[in-house]
Formats: sequence, C-alpha cells, structure tokens
Amino acid sequence: MDRTLPPPALDALQQRFGDRLSLARAVREQHGRDESPFDVPPPDAVVFAESTDEVAFVVALAHAHGFPVIPFGVGSSLEGHLLAVQGGVSIDLSRMNRILRVNAEDLTVTVQAGVTREQLNREIRDTGLFFPIDPGANATIGGMAATRASGTNAVRYGTMRENVLALTVVTASGEVLSTGTRARKSSAGYDLTRLFVGSEGTLGVMTEITLRLYPLPQAVSAAVCHFPDVASAVNTTIAIIQMGVPIARCELLDANAVRAVNRAEKMTLAEAPMLLMEFHGSDAGVQEQAELVQEIAAEHGGQAFEWATTPEARTRLWTARHRAYLSGLQMKPGCRAVTTDACVPISRLAEAIVDSVAEVEASGLPYFVVGHVGDGNFHVAYLIDPDKPEERELAERLNHQLVQRALRLEGTCTGEHGVGLHKQGFLREEAGEGGVAMMRALKAALDPRGILNPGKIFPA
Amino acid sequence: MDRTLPPPALDALQQRFGDRLSLARAVREQHGRDESPFDVPPPDAVVFAESTDEVAFVVALAHAHGFPVIPFGVGSSLEGHLLAVQGGVSIDLSRMNRILRVNAEDLTVTVQAGVTREQLNREIRDTGLFFPIDPGANATIGGMAATRASGTNAVRYGTMRENVLALTVVTASGEVLSTGTRARKSSAGYDLTRLFVGSEGTLGVMTEITLRLYPLPQAVSAAVCHFPDVASAVNTTIAIIQMGVPIARCELLDANAVRAVNRAEKMTLAEAPMLLMEFHGSDAGVQEQAELVQEIAAEHGGQAFEWATTPEARTRLWTARHRAYLSGLQMKPGCRAVTTDACVPISRLAEAIVDSVAEVEASGLPYFVVGHVGDGNFHVAYLIDPDKPEERELAERLNHQLVQRALRLEGTCTGEHGVGLHKQGFLREEAGEGGVAMMRALKAALDPRGILNPGKIFPA
Repeated sequence: MDRTLPPPALDALQQRFGDRLSLARAVREQHGRDESPFDVPPPDAVVFAESTDEVAFVVALAHAHGFPVIPFGVGSSLEGHLLAVQGGVSIDLSRMNRILRVNAEDLTVTVQAGVTREQLNREIRDTGLFFPIDPGANATIGGMAATRASGTNAVRYGTMRENVLALTVVTASGEVLSTGTRARKSSAGYDLTRLFVGSEGTLGVMTEITLRLYPLPQAVSAAVCHFPDVASAVNTTIAIIQMGVPIARCELLDANAVRAVNRAEKMTLAEAPMLLMEFHGSDAGVQEQAELVQEIAAEHGGQAFEWATTPEARTRLWTARHRAYLSGLQMKPGCRAVTTDACVPISRLAEAIVDSVAEVEASGLPYFVVGHVGDGNFHVAYLIDPDKPEERELAERLNHQLVQRALRLEGTCTGEHGVGLHKQGFLREEAGEGGVAMMRALKAALDPRGILNPGKIFPA
Repeated sequence: MDRTLPPPALDALQQRFGDRLSLARAVREQHGRDESPFDVPPPDAVVFAESTDEVAFVVALAHAHGFPVIPFGVGSSLEGHLLAVQGGVSIDLSRMNRILRVNAEDLTVTVQAGVTREQLNREIRDTGLFFPIDPGANATIGGMAATRASGTNAVRYGTMRENVLALTVVTASGEVLSTGTRARKSSAGYDLTRLFVGSEGTLGVMTEITLRLYPLPQAVSAAVCHFPDVASAVNTTIAIIQMGVPIARCELLDANAVRAVNRAEKMTLAEAPMLLMEFHGSDAGVQEQAELVQEIAAEHGGQAFEWATTPEARTRLWTARHRAYLSGLQMKPGCRAVTTDACVPISRLAEAIVDSVAEVEASGLPYFVVGHVGDGNFHVAYLIDPDKPEERELAERLNHQLVQRALRLEGTCTGEHGVGLHKQGFLREEAGEGGVAMMRALKAALDPRGILNPGKIFPA
C-alpha cells in the first residue's frame, strides 16, 4: 500500500499550519527517533499542533487520504513508538502544554497532552497536591497515558491505569470524543478510558487528560540501605510488601547502577546493591513504617540504613535515581541500551532478577539493573555498541531469555514501557495468538484504515 | 431475527448437560429476573455449567446457531442485566464456585466466576488476607467483575476496575482466552482485562478471575456519628477526603435508612443522618485517623461520635449497613425499588444529594438514601408499588432529574451498578452518541453475531 503523503494533503496541511508544518530533514529525523536502538526512515512531515481541533484536522485529513499519523510528545519512548515505519505525519503535541483546570477540592486536574510531569507538579505546587507518576524521563502526560507508564511511586499510588479519570480523544475519523467523567469511579458501559490508556497512539490521539491528584503527605522520609547481594535486597522488598507496609517508593539499584550514579552525579554511595525507599504519611506514621522496614532490612543483611531527612538530601537522591538510566549509558561511551521491562509477581522477583543477572554476567556484556521492585518490575539495561550487530544480537538474546523466564513466573514482558516495535514478539508469547487477534479486531474496529501509528503493538 | 433455540441446539445441550439443563418454567423464571423492577419473558433454557469447557461448549453452540447466552451468578443485579430480552440460554455459573489458587505471598487469588464475595473471604481467612470489594448483595465475583462493582471499601481499596488482575474469558466464538498475568501492572498492549471488567456479559463470559488481596489490617476501628442534616454529613466527608485521611469506609445513611435499619435489625441508632466509618492501619495510625476525623466531624455539627471497638459490634454495624437495601424495602410492604447510582466529584456531592432529596420529598414518594460518600457515590431508593404504573413513572422521572444533575456536576449515571437495561438512556446522555457508537463498534468487533447478552448497555 502506498502511504506517502499525497500533494493535496500536504497543501492542506501547509495552508492550515503555515510555518508550524516542517519538512526539514533535521526536524523530521528528530521526530522519527526515540531512546530505542532502532533506525528507520523519518516521517514525511511534522506538524506542531496547538489545539484539539488542529489534531482533529490532521487526523481527518489522514483518514481521507490514508496516510499515517504518529502522536509525538518529547520523544522519550524506549520501544520505538514514535518511529514512522510507514511514513506519514508526526503530530508534535509539545505546544499543547497548558494546565486547563485544577480542581483541588476534588483532587483532579485536566491538562493538555503535551504537559510534562515535572511541569505539572511545578504548576500545581501551591495547591498542596501532587501527581505521583514519574517515569525516568520528564515525559509528557500524553506519552505516559499512551504507554500506561508508572515509575517509582506506583507501589503506593498505582500507574496511569489507575490515575487517568477521563480523556479527550481524536478518533480515527477525526471526531472528538470525551471518555469518562471527573467521578472517581463509574460503571457506565465499556471502559473506553482504560482502552485508550496504553494503546500507544494506535486507537486515537489523546489531546486532553484528566488525572487524579494526591495531597502532599504531611511527612516524607527517604532512606537508602545497602545489601550484600541483590537477592537480599529483593527479599527485603518482598517482606515489606507482604506485611502491607504502605511504602511509597521502593527502588533497587544494583552495584553497577550505583557506580554509574556515583560517577555521573558525584555521589559517594557504597557501591553495593541498594534499596532507595520513601515513606509518606503523618509524622508518626512515617516513623512507624520506617522502624518496621529497618527491622526487616536488618533481618536480610541490610547495612548502613541512612536517612535523608532534609528535602534537599531527598531531592538529591531521587534526582540521582531518575538519572540512573542516563548515568548508566555514560559507563560505555557511545553506547545505546537495550532495556528489559519485565514485571513478575513479587514472590518470584528474586528468582527473576538473580537468574537474569547470572546470564548477563556470563555473557560479558556491560549492564546495570534498576527496579521498581515494590511492584515486581525491574529493568536490566544491556549496553551495546550500535556499530556492532553481534552485541545487539547478544542483548536481544539475553532479553528474550529474561522475558521467557518472566512469563514462566506468571509475569509480563513489559511493566511500564509498552510494546512499540521492540516487544511485539514478546507480546505474542504473553497474550497468545488469541489475545493478539482480539487486539487486532479492536484496532480494525476503531481504525479501519490503519492510519493511527500503524505497525506498533503488532505488525500493520 | 428469529433467535429461538433451534431443536438441534437443544438436543446438543441436553446431550452434554443431561439434568443440568433445565426447561422448567420456575427455573427459567428465576433466571430471567433480578432485583430490578422489570418483567420480561424468561430464557428458553438454563444450563448449570461446571467448567470453562462447558461454558465454551454452550457459547460455541450459540455462535453456530445464533441464539443468545446470558451469564448468571446469583441474580443480584439491580439493572436488568440478567433478563432474556431476546430469549436464549442462561448460563448459571453458581456451581463454578471453587477457589482455584491462593498465592498469599503475592497477595493474589484465582477463583471461578461463581464464587461469592463472602465465600471468598471465608475461605481465605486463615491466610491473613482479605478481598475488600463488597457490594450490598453477596454477589458472585463474576457478577461483580461484569458490572465493575465496588461497595463500602472502594474509597481506600478501589473497585473491581483496580482489583482484577487477570481473566479467563470465553469469547463469542467459544474460544478460551487468558487476559493479563499475575503481575501487578503491565503495559503489554490493549488492556483487555479492563475492557471485560464492566462489559456486563456482552463481550465474553468470564469464567476465572484473578484478584488482588490485601493484608488484614493490624487494627480496625469503626465509628458512627450523627449529623443535624445530610449536608453536614456530606461536608464532613468532603473534608476527610480532601485532607487525605486514608479512611477505609465512609458511608452515609439518611434518617429514613437509619429508621429502616433500626426496625429490621432491632438496633437503636439515633434516627438522623449518619456517617458510618471505618479506619484500617496500625494501632497508632488508626488512633490518629480517628482523632482527626472526630475533629472534622465536630466542626460540621457531628454529634455522639460512637466507637465500635469489638469485632462483634463492628460486624453488627456493617451487617446492618449491607442489609440497608433490604431493610428499606420492608418499609413499604410489597414494594420494589428504583435505585439511583450517580457518582459525582466529591466537591459537588452535597449539592447532588441535597437537591435530589428535596425533589423526592416534594414528590411524596417514600425513599431512603445510602451512599459510599467517600467516593462521591450515593443511592436514592424510590419505593414504588409495582402495580401502580404512575409510581414507576414518578420514580423514573425523579431518577432522570437526579442523573441529569449528576452529569451537569461532571459525574456519572452509574458508580457501580452498571447500565443493563435501565440506564441505557442515561448512558447515551453521559457518553454521547459518539461514545455509544464506539462501544457498539467494539461489541460488533468481538461479538459479530450479537449472541452475548444482547440488548444490554445499548439496544441490540
């Protein structure tokens, strides 16, 4: 099928967008790339949309002419979501960056899709509320909804699945639809909101998103604790979760990740497997949680429990954690990372990590491990030289082994990054032919011409 | 379209199910009825399924012959979900009542769809875990998943939306599909699990359900508090939620509901608007929450804060709450109830309830109000004489006014009961023609022959 942008469509775009339409190679290349180790031809054009109506205009045009459209936020996808595998138009939503409505009394906010998570929290700071979902990158809320993202707070506050209340969506035919309301729960028909959350731009373009917010906790306390090995750190986490401690964050960094962070962020953390934890609640509640967790950690060989009591010390630690991915990349100059994203039931987590680490150790490939271990989710980043196909192949093989193990342990191939291009084979193993066939049927029902980010989640 | 059960299909059912197929009028009538005030012809037959394979057999047969199938649990729907509006076969799942697997270390359990919520909690009691979702009736887990049910604990633990991890589903063609895994979160493609949760049997028949469990809290404390009027009780709730108190249950009963409970359950509660609350946590945490809430209540005119400290006293109170609906029905012998189910953003809750109560007071129809007010969800039950069409019409009119108010206040027409037959007009107002059209497209994609509980959520 010829999916090139036909001249009349290009004319229409030019007329509507003027200099907010770009055909420049550099702009197109920037929009045809993300953090994934893929290279494909860039989109034919990029439009910088400033309203839902403008997005609807582009999608309606795509529907009429049969060319693909790919929503774009800041390009922080790790799975090739943004790559124009069939050409078409990248719809850059970064100018749709307004907080539309804060309803502090209801703990909700409505934002345009191009608002980033850091911007959101900055702009609502004086309400006493915050939005907890925090993937490593300063992603857009639209991108986070599209990949069903989570991050370090999910163990307590859930993921985008639990925290998106309602959406404004441009459908494949260019119509504008509202899903959901500002009510906290609903049984009003099919859950369209959650069908779009995690759909990776393949069922519609989300332009406005209503989110749940949370009161800033009265007290916050963070701590680091080192362990003799990864298994001890993970077993500590398992015990914390099983005891029902309402821990807000529980992050693992292996010795390699700590080393990378020390080097990049000029920190002096002990270079051993580490848990980085945070507790939210009342003064007494935080104290109580912390004491309990300290006891549990000690039972598992945890050493040098250290508190970060000031906001500055806490920010320092969490900034380092959020930069762990970039710090890790710096360990091998010029490298790219193949990043795993398995998530398993908590009781299987130690086995999942320890066995996968043994495999990568045996392979000789540089790597590091970070994990939202409170959720059973962990990432092994394999550092590869993009010019050495044999390293890419080795990393893919290790990733495949890791995913197959996670599936055997009743887990998922992706806890928070999404499928994109990279995990389509894994999805087939996880969901089965029947599950993928059902997803395809849903796609065909909502996007019969296949214009919405085609070739993602499953082949077009 | 003729949808009667053709003789060859009946033969096949008889051969497979023997005396677990019933054509008896009494059995069919029992399966063609629920708690809703509707009367329609019963299904043509009832089968009592004992396995996923048996369900798949019936659905495959229905697919081949074009007759409808309606999954049936215990018949506690309030919205006409179970009524055989096009005839067909009712699949009774109540014999599929086994707990298949408890994974206490992961806080998950897998059950057959016919397990009831009380049975589940009874059978897992010795694990130290519990399943919090508790609609008024002792519903089946399958029915609760199908309607996206919640109950009194949702303010803290979420609804079926948040607590179903994975499903075994029989699709329209009679195939068996697994959705989801036991991982707590996943970004692996479209969220099929949440598409089925709340789909009211119209997209597939859920036969096995994997749920999240929670550690029984170390300390539990319940309290009742009376208020001079409904608005004060609701404003107390709003303040509790806005301050981020992790209250586990926060239920409103109006004076009529309290009166009904007193009479039916031989209790001596003060017959005034009442909040019934529960706190879960550590000893100190519960104490702290309780003190804070007592202060907030006092500021809003709350009186006679009374603690139920023993498990027996707590059970007595919550049993009374769960029976409030049945107790209310006894206030007008022979009546049926038209029950509203709106849910609004918490800041609009006082307005939503107070104005709706004023309307029903003016109408002269007997009524009572109960509400999961911590979620913004409340029920007005209008008590009507089923033999007086004018009372039914009046109740419907009041319900419509209440729903329109809730939609204006950015809420939903149904917080937890589902759409069924009763709320199809409301759904159209809430989701819009575009939203319902999208739901229809999904239905057509997954059930092209329209055999799965046809005529529910939207007209067939």
